[in-house]
Amino acid sequence: MPDIRRHITRDVPVARVSDSPDAVIAALRGTRHHGVGTVFVVDGGEMLLGQVRLADIFAAAGTEGTLAQFVQAAPVTVHPDTDQEDAASLAIREDLISLPVVDDNGRFLGALPPHALMQVLREEHVEDLHRLAGIWRSAEDARRALTQPPTLRLRHRLPWLLIGLAGSLLATRVVAGFEATLSQHVTLAFFIPLIVYLADAVGTQTEAIAVRGLSLSPGGLGRLLLGEIGTGALIGLCLALLAAGFERVVFGQPGLATVLGVSILAACTIATTIGLLLPWAFSRVGWDPALASGPIATVLQDVLSLLIYFFIAAAVLG
Amino acid sequence: MPDIRRHITRDVPVARVSDSPDAVIAALRGTRHHGVGTVFVVDGGEMLLGQVRLADIFAAAGTEGTLAQFVQAAPVTVHPDTDQEDAASLAIREDLISLPVVDDNGRFLGALPPHALMQVLREEHVEDLHRLAGIWRSAEDARRALTQPPTLRLRHRLPWLLIGLAGSLLATRVVAGFEATLSQHVTLAFFIPLIVYLADAVGTQTEAIAVRGLSLSPGGLGRLLLGEIGTGALIGLCLALLAAGFERVVFGQPGLATVLGVSILAACTIATTIGLLLPWAFSRVGWDPALASGPIATVLQDVLSLLIYFFIAAAVLG
Repeated sequence: MPDIRRHITRDVPVARVSDSPDAVIAALRGTRHHGVGTVFVVDGGEMLLGQVRLADIFAAAGTEGTLAQFVQAAPVTVHPDTDQEDAASLAIREDLISLPVVDDNGRFLGALPPHALMQVLREEHVEDLHRLAGIWRSAEDARRALTQPPTLRLRHRLPWLLIGLAGSLLATRVVAGFEATLSQHVTLAFFIPLIVYLADAVGTQTEAIAVRGLSLSPGGLGRLLLGEIGTGALIGLCLALLAAGFERVVFGQPGLATVLGVSILAACTIATTIGLLLPWAFSRVGWDPALASGPIATVLQDVLSLLIYFFIAAAVLG
Repeated sequence: MPDIRRHITRDVPVARVSDSPDAVIAALRGTRHHGVGTVFVVDGGEMLLGQVRLADIFAAAGTEGTLAQFVQAAPVTVHPDTDQEDAASLAIREDLISLPVVDDNGRFLGALPPHALMQVLREEHVEDLHRLAGIWRSAEDARRALTQPPTLRLRHRLPWLLIGLAGSLLATRVVAGFEATLSQHVTLAFFIPLIVYLADAVGTQTEAIAVRGLSLSPGGLGRLLLGEIGTGALIGLCLALLAAGFERVVFGQPGLATVLGVSILAACTIATTIGLLLPWAFSRVGWDPALASGPIATVLQDVLSLLIYFFIAAAVLG
């Protein structure tokens, strides 16, 4: 998560709070600023007092008064260390198209202009897609992803796959632990892809929502968690009934239908829980929640779902 | 993919091409426009000739000449029917913070201001994450995803899962078709989660890159495809060697190690191929490529990988 330093520009219009609208307009004549839609207002000591849209200054042209009438009590600001994604989210939330950057003392350092915010939004978009898919790469790299030589792509894509492989080998050990049950009931193996697929799919949905949703949603974790557990249970119920019905019709083993139904219900509920808790935990310790949505959550969901499936199978089918 | 209509504003500064910079500045005094960083330039018949940054107009204040000197030969424009994601991509590519909207005849209709473009970029970001995870929902809905009641979430999330379930039941039939082989070699079942996981994971990586990458990458499909097939083969080779090695150490069945290695290599190569071809095909017929990256591709990859795994197993192990 890069900070905003590389996007800060000093080349923006700055005015004193004591200036009149006419003085601001007059001062802009003959100068060329990078962004001119917004004027940043400072006091005599370069402390930022706020930003004023040039539209408002033009509207007040010819009237009495100073920029003080436009200045907000607590201006929205960012710090050079602010994460670029956080800055872009702040701008959208506050309906601003540029953000003033201040130091620890509130001194004006420059601004994030609209085109920088737009670029950040696009970069973070592509980066999130990649993170969700388990691709380890910086946002700047992402644009060239489809034209890099395969050996370079390997370097970005293999690391998370190796974690996934390690997790899959753990899943292999889980299944192997139920060899006796499996030998007696080979039909159990037929539904392994279904269990793994559904746990992954349901969990990935929650992760995709949580990755950006956590920062946008009001309310504490408890309420969010309850909602997702409820959703997982509802989804699980629908899928469990359908899968169990299919089993009854095609294979005709009532015991297996029970095992399948209960396992799917449990797997879906666990998948939404992990899908929400893992990104939440990542964001709590300051990591990008998108990193939690890659193979770590998937593999955890796979292993737990298979454990449930075979435990229930061993209990029901013997 | 909504069009840009709801984002168009007419409330932007418009000037005649014959106006001088001073005349433009004078005309803005006392008016309040929504966005004032950019002035749109029209001829006498309201035909759009281009856009000029107010910064450039201020820089030329007091000089001779008209806006004609700033106007581009072929201005970048969008149409009311333009997809909002395409409009935002165009703005980023052309380094513009607002886009003029024209009708079929080139008549000026209004503009997409920077805050609309920023909102579109964020909406499409969240929407892509959801599509990749198989959540059927409009971009406008996405913000409330974590606070909606579970029954409403079910409606957005179940449709793709049902397609996924149908595909999984197909995978079940595939595995069931190899019951004889499986009964003889139960160990084969241990590695089903691994085969399914790796095919999914490798394919999802390609889809995530392809969803936004296809529109950004130069070069034809052939070159992109070759690159992804090469990447899939390289990734497959690494994972195949590791998984086969693990099998030899833990289970000690050389035949199974061969089956596993060859299957993983084939599954990874197929996964990258489908992961690229499906989004590409979707975008060719005008659908959102992100839709192709949900359960359709995953289930296709699962079924093909399991077919390969069991065909090779039947051939090698008998």
